[in-house]
Amino acid sequence: MVSIRITGLATLPEIRSGDILAPLILAAAAREQQRITRSTIVVVAQKIVSKAEGSTIDLAGIEPSSFAATWAAQWGKDARLIELVLRQSRRIVRMDRGVLITETHHGFVAANAGVDRSNTPGDDMATVLPSDPDASAAALMAALDCGAVIISDTFGRPWREGLVNVAIGVSGIGPLEDLRGTQDRGGHALSATILARADELASAAGLVMGKSAGVPVVLIEGYEWEPCEGSARPLIRPPEFDLFR
Amino acid sequence: MVSIRITGLATLPEIRSGDILAPLILAAAAREQQRITRSTIVVVAQKIVSKAEGSTIDLAGIEPSSFAATWAAQWGKDARLIELVLRQSRRIVRMDRGVLITETHHGFVAANAGVDRSNTPGDDMATVLPSDPDASAAALMAALDCGAVIISDTFGRPWREGLVNVAIGVSGIGPLEDLRGTQDRGGHALSATILARADELASAAGLVMGKSAGVPVVLIEGYEWEPCEGSARPLIRPPEFDLFR
Repeated sequence: MVSIRITGLATLPEIRSGDILAPLILAAAAREQQRITRSTIVVVAQKIVSKAEGSTIDLAGIEPSSFAATWAAQWGKDARLIELVLRQSRRIVRMDRGVLITETHHGFVAANAGVDRSNTPGDDMATVLPSDPDASAAALMAALDCGAVIISDTFGRPWREGLVNVAIGVSGIGPLEDLRGTQDRGGHALSATILARADELASAAGLVMGKSAGVPVVLIEGYEWEPCEGSARPLIRPPEFDLFR
Repeated sequence: MVSIRITGLATLPEIRSGDILAPLILAAAAREQQRITRSTIVVVAQKIVSKAEGSTIDLAGIEPSSFAATWAAQWGKDARLIELVLRQSRRIVRMDRGVLITETHHGFVAANAGVDRSNTPGDDMATVLPSDPDASAAALMAALDCGAVIISDTFGRPWREGLVNVAIGVSGIGPLEDLRGTQDRGGHALSATILARADELASAAGLVMGKSAGVPVVLIEGYEWEPCEGSARPLIRPPEFDLFR
C-alpha cells in the first residue's frame, strides 16, 4: 500500500527581501510538529523564493517601451507591468485578446512570464520568477537537509481552464519518471509513458497551498524515488519538438 | 495545519468488460483496511472504467479509411489505431511529425483522442475514453457513497515534457476553485486565480498510480470542499477562448 502525506506549513512569517528561507521553514516545521528529513520533499511557492531573493520589482521605476505602451493601451493594462513582462521574456508565444504568453529567459512558457502582482507588499510591486530556480532549490535542499526541493508556481495551460501548480525549480529528484520499457499487467510495454512527476508533486502541494496565501511551503512524505541531482530543465519541451509555439 | 493523505488501492483484480467497479473497489478498500466515507475523494483511472464499461475495441474489426491509412503509412503507425482515433474525434488540433492531437467528442484535447493500447488484454485491443465520464463518475459516487469521484487519465501538454494525470470525469466536487475576490495577505485581490483543483487532485493521485499499473484507484482524505454536483466540463476551455487550437 502506497500512501503519501501532504502537509502545509501555515506559520511562516511574511517573507521580505534578504530573508533566509531555510531557518524560517525549519522553525515553522518545528512549531507545527513536522519533521523534515531526507525522505521529505519540500515544495516551496515561487513567490516567497522571489521575495527572499529580492526579485520584487517596483513598477514605479520602470519606463515602458513604446511597444509595451501600445499593447497596454489597447487592452487596458498597466504599461509598466507589460514592460516588465517583456524584459523577463526571450520570445513571445502568443499576444492576443489581452493575453500575453511568453517564453521566459529560463525557457518556461507562462502567461505574463510569471510576473505576479498578487501577494506583494504594495500596489506598485510585482514579483518575477527567480533567476535560477534550480540553484534556489539546490541551496534550499542543502540548508534544509531534506530529500528534495521543488519550487512551484501556478501556470495556466492551453485547452483546459484553471491554473495548476507546476515545478519551475527542482533539486534532489528527477523531474520525469520514465516508465518506458517497464511492463504493464498485460505484459505489454507501457509505451511512451514518461510521467512529469515533479509537476504532479507540485500539483499535489498546490491542493494545500491553494487554500490560503499563508501556506507557501508544503511537506510531502511517503513518496519514494531514486535520489539524484535534479533540475526542472528536462520539463521544458525543446521548441523544435513543440507543436504549440 | 492542512494535511492530505493519498492512498492507492493495490488489490483490485484485473477488470473485464461487464465488471461492476463499486463492489470491487469497496472490497479492495476493506482488504487494505481503508475506509471510504463522504469525506473521501475516490480517483479512478480511466482505463478500468473503460474496461468495465466495455469501451475496449478490437482493432482486428476496424477497417481503416483511406485518410487513416495514408497517415499511418507515412509515419509507421497502425492504420487501424489511427482510424479508431479519428472515430473518437470531432476535430484534429495538430497532425504533424507522427503526432495526432485531437478534440474528442467530449471536447477534451488529447494525443490519440485518449485511445490507449497499454494495459489491454491483447495486442490488438485498445481502450477508448468512457463515452460519458461525468455519468460514470456520478454512478460510481452513488454506489460508493463517497464524497466525490474523479475519473482520471494521463495527458500530455504543450511546452512541457511528460504526462500528468488530469480529470476527465467529475462528480461531487466543483472542478475549479475560484479564488477571485478573496484577498491575499497583502490585502490585494488574488486576481485571475482560478485553480483547476480536480486536475490537481488527479495529479496527486497520479503520484501513486504512476508507481504501478496495479494501482488504478486512489483514495484522498483530508481535502475539504463544498459538495456540489460536479462535472469535468468546466475544465474544458471553450475553443473561442483558446489561443492554441
